[in-house]
Parts: sequence; structure tokens; C-alpha cells
Amino acid sequence: MRESEHGESETRRQVDAAARAALDLANVDEAARNDALRSIAAALREHTDEILDANREDVAAAEERLEQGEYPAALVDRLRLDAGKVEDIAEMVESVAEQDDPLGDTLDARELDDGLDLYKVSVPIGVVATVFESRPDALVQIAALAAKSGNAVILKGGSEASESNRVLYDLIREATSDLPGGWAQLVEAREDVDRLLDMDDAVDLVMPRGSSEFVSYIQDNTQIPVLGHTEGVCHVFVDDAADLDVAEDVAFDAKVQYPAVCNAVETLLVHDAVADDFLPGMVERYEDAGVTLRGCERTRDIVDVDEVRDDDWDTEYGDLELSIRIVDDVYAAVDHANTHGSKHTESILTEDDDHAAVFMQGIDAASVFHNASTRFADGYRYGLGAEVGISTGKIHARGPVGLDGLTTYKYYLEGDGHLVATYSGEDATPFTHRDFDGDWTPGGSE
Amino acid sequence: MRESEHGESETRRQVDAAARAALDLANVDEAARNDALRSIAAALREHTDEILDANREDVAAAEERLEQGEYPAALVDRLRLDAGKVEDIAEMVESVAEQDDPLGDTLDARELDDGLDLYKVSVPIGVVATVFESRPDALVQIAALAAKSGNAVILKGGSEASESNRVLYDLIREATSDLPGGWAQLVEAREDVDRLLDMDDAVDLVMPRGSSEFVSYIQDNTQIPVLGHTEGVCHVFVDDAADLDVAEDVAFDAKVQYPAVCNAVETLLVHDAVADDFLPGMVERYEDAGVTLRGCERTRDIVDVDEVRDDDWDTEYGDLELSIRIVDDVYAAVDHANTHGSKHTESILTEDDDHAAVFMQGIDAASVFHNASTRFADGYRYGLGAEVGISTGKIHARGPVGLDGLTTYKYYLEGDGHLVATYSGEDATPFTHRDFDGDWTPGGSE
Repeated sequence: MRESEHGESETRRQVDAAARAALDLANVDEAARNDALRSIAAALREHTDEILDANREDVAAAEERLEQGEYPAALVDRLRLDAGKVEDIAEMVESVAEQDDPLGDTLDARELDDGLDLYKVSVPIGVVATVFESRPDALVQIAALAAKSGNAVILKGGSEASESNRVLYDLIREATSDLPGGWAQLVEAREDVDRLLDMDDAVDLVMPRGSSEFVSYIQDNTQIPVLGHTEGVCHVFVDDAADLDVAEDVAFDAKVQYPAVCNAVETLLVHDAVADDFLPGMVERYEDAGVTLRGCERTRDIVDVDEVRDDDWDTEYGDLELSIRIVDDVYAAVDHANTHGSKHTESILTEDDDHAAVFMQGIDAASVFHNASTRFADGYRYGLGAEVGISTGKIHARGPVGLDGLTTYKYYLEGDGHLVATYSGEDATPFTHRDFDGDWTPGGSE
Repeated sequence: MRESEHGESETRRQVDAAARAALDLANVDEAARNDALRSIAAALREHTDEILDANREDVAAAEERLEQGEYPAALVDRLRLDAGKVEDIAEMVESVAEQDDPLGDTLDARELDDGLDLYKVSVPIGVVATVFESRPDALVQIAALAAKSGNAVILKGGSEASESNRVLYDLIREATSDLPGGWAQLVEAREDVDRLLDMDDAVDLVMPRGSSEFVSYIQDNTQIPVLGHTEGVCHVFVDDAADLDVAEDVAFDAKVQYPAVCNAVETLLVHDAVADDFLPGMVERYEDAGVTLRGCERTRDIVDVDEVRDDDWDTEYGDLELSIRIVDDVYAAVDHANTHGSKHTESILTEDDDHAAVFMQGIDAASVFHNASTRFADGYRYGLGAEVGISTGKIHARGPVGLDGLTTYKYYLEGDGHLVATYSGEDATPFTHRDFDGDWTPGGSE
């Protein structure tokens, strides 16, 4: 057997083992899943030295490649763990354990007829896979979210973190020996990514973690549904009916408070009628904070900034950079955001509710805000609990996604020997279709 | 420009036009969408002769190919319309108009802090495409479901129905002239299917309608999410604690009441302890109804049926055929269904609630029933209203799917100039994260 064939059958074996474990894991009760998470946290703390030793090997190898110019410095930073970071990871795992159980919720209960009751109940998706770049904490986070939500998980980390990942994976596996064996699988070879992405018969969801390019690559190379986001090109629109002091504070917060993240604003749209009043002070404040500004021609008639380049309207800077465009009205702002935005988060500043309604309903994005900073688009701030990710897709989950993004549902029908023949043909009995409050419980409901 | 390039740019133009229309259609109110549906129904009735003339051309061409052995007779039957069928289609469109509006529902409302309220509101997905085989009624049905749910739609029918489809499409377009222009697009060329399937940047969901092979082809050739089902390999398990009279009626109903559909049973699993009592009567009843039976060795020790073939356990007969297997207990039944089933619908007959719980929780399928016929797995019987389709996927929608399968959601955040800086760092204000009852309404909520 050739090496590549061996690798292929090994990946297949791992995915099949995960799929088998998923069937059992779906029925592990909440207490046992939470115990497993607490065991992971304890193991991380107990074996911090071991984790850091392995991580030092990865970092040393990465620094060597950094010197040879093969690696960006930021990547080495993301790779590096210390005792404080390991403690942060352990606390993150404990906080996942403290979340409400996403499983076993009766989402709907409906009587179809006397003694025939239908329940729609949340259950795990099955097998989720994650493919991530250098950060070793991504491995632990996704394993924790998977265990909490009863999903088996395939973990594929970057080769630059292979020593760290292997130690973390071994600790997780040992700490969760009470969960169905094989529920977590580590996949290591580069070629395994494409094999995994081909296994749409057995992997139900892929959650990539990494750069926009990386997530795009995953999206373009698999038929498995992908939960993730590539980029955030977000806008703030200062309407003619804005409170300009409020607008200045929000536009500042949306860019400067933390510019590296996907919910930071990239383009400021300003209504023509207030541009003269608004822009000079705003530009001064941005420039004092070190923001590089570029603007359209009409902007440059008012303030002294560079000319926008061809691709500025479509660029996620992820940095202290911002483009400014003057528009004629809220409709033009909506049109700009729908044309150039990434359907992530958009915000209008206005005291006019009709203008707000036009903007909020007219824009096709996961999150649309009125008089609030785009930076609020986040699972923690939304009160979703553990954040599984942010989705710029529209199917299954959109925007910040909590643990319920890792669930699907199952219909349970409890009857008494009911036949479809009774409800068909000439003398068909009618259905009652009466919704009721009630939970499905194994072995006897309502 | 070569022909194929022309076709490609034309398909692109149509999809882009649909995407633009979708932005406006999302904000067309319920009354206008329902009026458009009633106009479609009226147009179908008024132009029945025109529809039937076009349909006769399609049928004549298909009959010619039938004589040449190129077409199965069933396909010609599915293609054929008459005045009664056109009336049925018109009534179907009216019934879609009568459904509850799936848009604008506030799914969650949460105060993040004083004056900062988050709403999760149902909105259309955007652009849905349907690719369907011969039945011209599929075109009208999907267009109606799309209009109701505020989605733009790309319609690609089979070439064998091209005359019927063109007339139906023209009627729909004219009848819905009050909806945003371009909301429905007809695509005709064979090559356009693959082009459509490549446009995952602009098409949000594909709903194929046709044979299992056809749906599989679509699923295997696109990165656009697919809402559909390929096959239904459903099981009925007669437990040792079953009421055998009830079991016989349900197992009979599940196969014989309508064997051609995906929720009919294909394999009967019987607990070893009751097989001697149960099988002879059951087999006699099936055989009286003309069901062809095959069984495992242990079954054949009790009743005189043919031996199962290699692929019987994995086959959707869609006909009066059934395979029978004797199993040792409920766990073996669960294992068989998880191994050979298509995650569609499974049913256990038992008076023992613990056995029922093992079966219902252990099986990974969209619908799992206790003492009821598998034939209940259907959007109408579930009380979902208009059925968009049945999904054997687990992401976004599972099992019978109603109109809400054509929606996603949008987060609206209403603030008062709130900044993320307030909730960050040393003196961070805590979030309140208080759920409340309230609906988002354009221009002033709660």
C-alpha cells in the first residue's frame, strides 16, 4: 500500500470512528458532558509544563522559519503559549461547561390528533470538523464546544503547531475517557485536509478558523456546509438627521476601539447635508488616533485626505485605516453597503425613525444597527454565551453563532398505533394540529 | 461572442437581476405578496386553454420519444396537464397565499443594556433556485413559495416541458407585475444548470425536484446549499413488547397505503421473541395486498419468502416490495437502521417506554416515531402548512420543511449612541442581557 493510500484509509477510519461515537455521544447526558469539560480544564492546568514544552518546540521551529523569511511574525505570536494563556484556555473550557445545555430542548409540540403528538427536539448535528491555522487554543475551544453540544469532532491544526496540538489532543482524549471512545480525532497531515473536505457523506459541518484567504479556500473546496466568515467590510452611515456628537463617538468607537476585528468599520458614509459640519471634527479625531484616511472627491473638497484607491470600498483593512464617502441620501447609503459590504454588520446614525427603517430593512446583512457601534456584533455582547463563530452565510446560522449553531433537530412522533389510512381518502379524519406546551422526555411525554 | 459565452453572460445577467430584485422583494409587505399569489391563481384559470395548448406540444414531443424508447411512460404522465390539474395548481397557489406570513417574526428580543435592544427577526434568504424534472406544476409551486417568503427565484425546468414552462412563467411574470421586476427568472438551456450551480456567490439555496439520481447529481455538483432529499429507506421495528395487532396495522399502513413515496417503509425489523407469532399473519396480509417479500435466513425459517439479495437492506423500493429481518433486540434494530437507513423516518412498535426511548434517541434520523406509521412524515400532516420539501440533510432544515425553511434571520440592534468602549476594559459596564417579549417594528420598537 502506498503512503498516500495508507493516509487516506487512516483518515477514513478516523472519520468513521467519529461518526460511530457521535451516535452514542448524542445520548450522553448533560452532567457527563459537563464533567468531561471540567476534566479537560483540570488536565490543562495539571499538565501546563508539558504543554509549554511542546509549544516551545513549535515556536523554535517557527522562529527559525521566521528568520528565513518564510513566516510572518504575527503567526509566531499567535502560536506562542505561556502559563497565563493556558489558564485562560482552561477557564474558557469551564465557561463552556457552565452554559445552558443546547440539547433536548422541545422547540415545538403539536397535537396532530387525539393521542398523536409531534415534538421537535434539539439534537447534535453529528460530526463537526475544524481546520485551523496556528493558534493551538482553537483546538481546545472547538473540542469543548463540540463536547458541550454532543458532537463528535475532527481536529486538523496547522503543521506549525503540531507538537502543541498533539499534547493538547492527548490531554483532551485522556480527560474525556468517560465519553464514547473516538469522539475526538486529531488529523495531522497536510493532505488530510482535502480528504476531509471530500467526506461530505460523514462530516456534517466544517468550522474553519484562520485568515480570510484560509476560510475562502475551505469554502471553495468542499460540499460540506461551512460555518465561518471570510471578511467584514462594515459601514457606518451618518444620516442628515443624525445627532452629530453621537455620530462622532460611534464612528470613532467602531474604528478605533479595536481595529483588527471583523466588526470594525471600514467605510464611513456621510450624508451630503451634514458633511461640512461633521467631517472636519471627525477627521481630526481619527487622525489624532493615528487612523489613515482616504476619501471620495466630495470628501476631499471638505477635508484634506488622500484619494480613495480602486479597491478601497471593498477592502477589509483590519487596521487603523478608513475610507470616507459622501452620499446623497439613505438610499444611496443602502445601495453602497449592499454593493460593497460583506453582509456582516452595518450601522446608521440618525434621529429619524423613517430613515432608520429604510436603512435597516433595505440592507442585506446579518446585523443592522441603529445608533450603535458595529463592534457590538459579537456572540458575547449579544448574550449568546459561548461563541461558536460568526457566519456571513445565510443558511443554518447567521451572524454571531452560539452553541445552538451546533445543533439540529429531530421530530419525535408519539402515537397509539395511528395509521395514515385513517386520515386519507373519502372519510378522512381531519387533523387537529393544536400546538401545546409540553416537553418530549424519553419514555413518556406530556 | 461564441454561443456558450453568450449563454453564460445571459444566465449571469438573470441571476444578478434576481439578486437586485431580492433586496426590494424582502420589503414588500404581506398583503402585496398575497395579492400577487392570487393574481397568479386567477391568471392560471383565465389562461387554462393556452397552458393546455403548450402542454400538448410538450406531450406530443415526449410521446414521440416514448415510441422511440427514449422516455419512460411515467415521465410522459407526469408531464401531462389537463383542466383539472390546472385548477389544482391554482388552488395550491391560493393555499400558499393563505399561510401565515413567514417574514417579520421577532424570534428573540433581548435588552443588552439600558436603551440597547437586540431583535432577531425572520427575513427572506434572498435568491433561491429550483431545478426540476418534467412536472410543470413544480415551476408554479416553487414560484409561489418564493413569492410568499419574499425570495427571488430562478426556475430551471426540464427541456421536455419547455413549452408548458414558458407559458406558465410568462403568466406568473405578468400576474406579479406589482412585485419588483426580475424577481422570477426562467432559465432554459441544459448548460445553464451547471452555470447556475456554479453561482454560489449569488444563489443562496437550490431546491431540486426530481428523482433520487437527479437530486444526488445536484448535491454533488454545487457548493450552494441544497434543500432536498435523495431517498427514503425507512424502517418499522416490531419490538418484543409490541401490541402485535397494532404492529400489524401500522406495518401494513406504512407499506401499502401509498408505496411510491419516500416515507413508505422498505424494511420490517422484527424482534426474535415475537417473530413466530407475528410473521405468519403479517406475511399473509402483505401477500394478499400484492407485496413482494424477501427475508433474512431467520425469517425464512418461519415464513416462506425469497432470500434477501445483497442490496436489499439499502434499497428504496418505492413499490409493493419489502424486506424482512429478524433482530435480537432494540439495540440491533437501532444499529440496522443507523447502518442502512437514509436518516428519513423510522418507527418502533412497542408498549415498553424504555425500549421506545432507546430506539428514538439512538436513531439518527429526521423523524423517529413510536406506535405510528412512517407515512405521517409529511409537511401537511405535521401541520407545517405549505411544504417546501423534505430534507435529509441536517443543516438549516431537517425532515418536512415549511415556509420557514425559505427564511433566515437578521439581527436588529436599536441603541442610543452606545459604544463598545463603555463595555470594555477596567471599568467595563456589565451587560444586562435580559430577554423580553417585544416585536421589532420598522421605525420605533417595543
